[in-house]
Amino acid sequence: MDQITNSKANKAASPIGDFKIFATEGQARTGRLQTAHGAVETPIFMPVGTKATVKGMTPEELTGMGAQIILGNTYHLHLRPGEDVIAELGGLHKFMNWHGPILTDSGGFQVFSLSDLNKVTEEGVEFRSHIDGSKSFLSPEKSMQIQTALGADIVMAFDECLPHPSTREKIIESMAMTKRWLVRSRQALTRKESLLFGIVQGGLDLELRMKSLEDVTGVDLPGYALGGFSVGEPIHLMHELVKVVGPQMPKEKPRYLMGVGTPLDLILCVDAGIDMFDCVMPTRVARNGNLYTWQGRVSIKRTEYRTDPSPLDPECECYTCKNYSKAYLRHLFLSAEILSARLNTIHNLHFYLDLMAKARAAIREGRWAKFRDFCLTRFIKT
Amino acid sequence: MDQITNSKANKAASPIGDFKIFATEGQARTGRLQTAHGAVETPIFMPVGTKATVKGMTPEELTGMGAQIILGNTYHLHLRPGEDVIAELGGLHKFMNWHGPILTDSGGFQVFSLSDLNKVTEEGVEFRSHIDGSKSFLSPEKSMQIQTALGADIVMAFDECLPHPSTREKIIESMAMTKRWLVRSRQALTRKESLLFGIVQGGLDLELRMKSLEDVTGVDLPGYALGGFSVGEPIHLMHELVKVVGPQMPKEKPRYLMGVGTPLDLILCVDAGIDMFDCVMPTRVARNGNLYTWQGRVSIKRTEYRTDPSPLDPECECYTCKNYSKAYLRHLFLSAEILSARLNTIHNLHFYLDLMAKARAAIREGRWAKFRDFCLTRFIKT
Repeated sequence: MDQITNSKANKAASPIGDFKIFATEGQARTGRLQTAHGAVETPIFMPVGTKATVKGMTPEELTGMGAQIILGNTYHLHLRPGEDVIAELGGLHKFMNWHGPILTDSGGFQVFSLSDLNKVTEEGVEFRSHIDGSKSFLSPEKSMQIQTALGADIVMAFDECLPHPSTREKIIESMAMTKRWLVRSRQALTRKESLLFGIVQGGLDLELRMKSLEDVTGVDLPGYALGGFSVGEPIHLMHELVKVVGPQMPKEKPRYLMGVGTPLDLILCVDAGIDMFDCVMPTRVARNGNLYTWQGRVSIKRTEYRTDPSPLDPECECYTCKNYSKAYLRHLFLSAEILSARLNTIHNLHFYLDLMAKARAAIREGRWAKFRDFCLTRFIKT
Repeated sequence: MDQITNSKANKAASPIGDFKIFATEGQARTGRLQTAHGAVETPIFMPVGTKATVKGMTPEELTGMGAQIILGNTYHLHLRPGEDVIAELGGLHKFMNWHGPILTDSGGFQVFSLSDLNKVTEEGVEFRSHIDGSKSFLSPEKSMQIQTALGADIVMAFDECLPHPSTREKIIESMAMTKRWLVRSRQALTRKESLLFGIVQGGLDLELRMKSLEDVTGVDLPGYALGGFSVGEPIHLMHELVKVVGPQMPKEKPRYLMGVGTPLDLILCVDAGIDMFDCVMPTRVARNGNLYTWQGRVSIKRTEYRTDPSPLDPECECYTCKNYSKAYLRHLFLSAEILSARLNTIHNLHFYLDLMAKARAAIREGRWAKFRDFCLTRFIKT
């Protein structure tokens, strides 16, 4: 819980956007990013709260398991309840009763992956809502306006997110527009409390990634992200790319790998110098009965757990592992009980957050390589 | 929270089954029933934990909102995960991590209302599981064996539960068998820590109810229940019947009205001398977005709440009302979020438990009639 205490103590101590690195080992680093709603210790995993709620969790539960910052989704919140509703109710923090930092994505990823139809022009993207089919429009300016209305501490630039695979020509064209949209995003965002992060695209082509990195870091911003992953690409290609590109990102700025990944992905990418992660995986697979443990991934519905009195993970200190047996978790899952989703989500999020807390401690104490290798032996099989 | 403190302080103070009445006003009474897992202050509402979980709630949340005793369902737990599994894991309390008193029904009601087919003989009931269609059998002896394996503090006698309406002849025949089954239930239950409650049947016919009451109270037991309601009968007929029969039940024993009801039902029946209630209503309607408040019943999806910053119930002290707006609750409900079910359930259960806590205080302090009339003016319109 050290990060929570620090976060509170430093709420007013550093200027917004200040990023301090405390220790490095190889490319891995641990530091602290100051936001308008408190500091975030890195490397960090950010639970995803798509629709103004991290599925099944209260804010108190998130804080209790060490969550420092959560995500909100511009696309979903724009469609329902609408940023006007949230603004009228005092912003996303107040609306959902989460008083720590919030990062909102730009809506770009969802427009391209979720909406029924979308039509891209230089101006922006026209799309149809996946909820009711109604027409909507997002552009850099509109995205910044929505994220401002939400009151996000970290705001993502509006970019085009291509599917994998895309042609080299298409990627080059898209990168150029993403750069123009970045400049427009920066111009449109006037809210001083919000930190704008630029997004590096370029698919899996190293040369194009480096070109996009040059483009995006040409705009001076408080942080930079690698986007365009989790779109169906082979995972080892992502690892290879991040291993090269991560260390090339500005050293003095936080580096955010969007939409990634498994515990193994997190460890490999922290090793490549990444500071921030988000992913729906721990919460989504939890609801499907899949749980990350230090002994490997567990499918809780298996018959062998029918009368198993042991906790999910004897090495875990989460509420679920301290209070319930595998047999009970199996029963709740088979009975499709709400408590199943809750207890499983608590465990998986705790596992991710604890993994990052352990990574921070290891880097700070000069034993990152050892911790990384320990994690790899544990996770590689799962 | 006085009842919690009392409950702990008295855990070993009174013999199991001891029932003390502290105060009465008219027919209403407040008292304390001692069970093997602690005392229960009456009148009390018992949240229903059908499948070894009160839907969406942790045991800590239940305790926090003043729950003293919860229900488990013999029929459901017999089918899944099976009483053998629960017994092997140390009983229902340990299995679900609830360390207060548990009452289990006998399975009778569910066999007649949920199972696909059932065939009644003097021996018991053969039925098909609503889960997988497999054949199963319940009898007084089997029901006692299951409830013993679960480790219930209060065990309900196995009875036949007729649908409404049933013919007078059918009711008379059924009552006679229910009495024979009660004798067999008592004979079969040898576990000293379990308190057996008999169930008065007789439909809506006052004469038959009184006959059944005579039959059932002819067997000396630590408590008696009124069964056979919530089977489709007109609610005012239930009120009229309980008004007459409630006061005729043994004064020195706890009186339990099974499967009832709304806040209005609870107040009217406390006024008729009932001590214990259970019902799925507060939890079930919560998941459908219907909420009980001191200003009447609220359907949270209504458009008028779109930007409503006020709490659900300004007179309520629950977690939901202290932390969230109606606008947020509406958003969560429309988004079918798990947190919607949680926050709504917390509110409704708190409302029921708080209503009973207020009833206890009113009876103790000699202002029951005033409190009852206040409740009636508030609830009658909802």
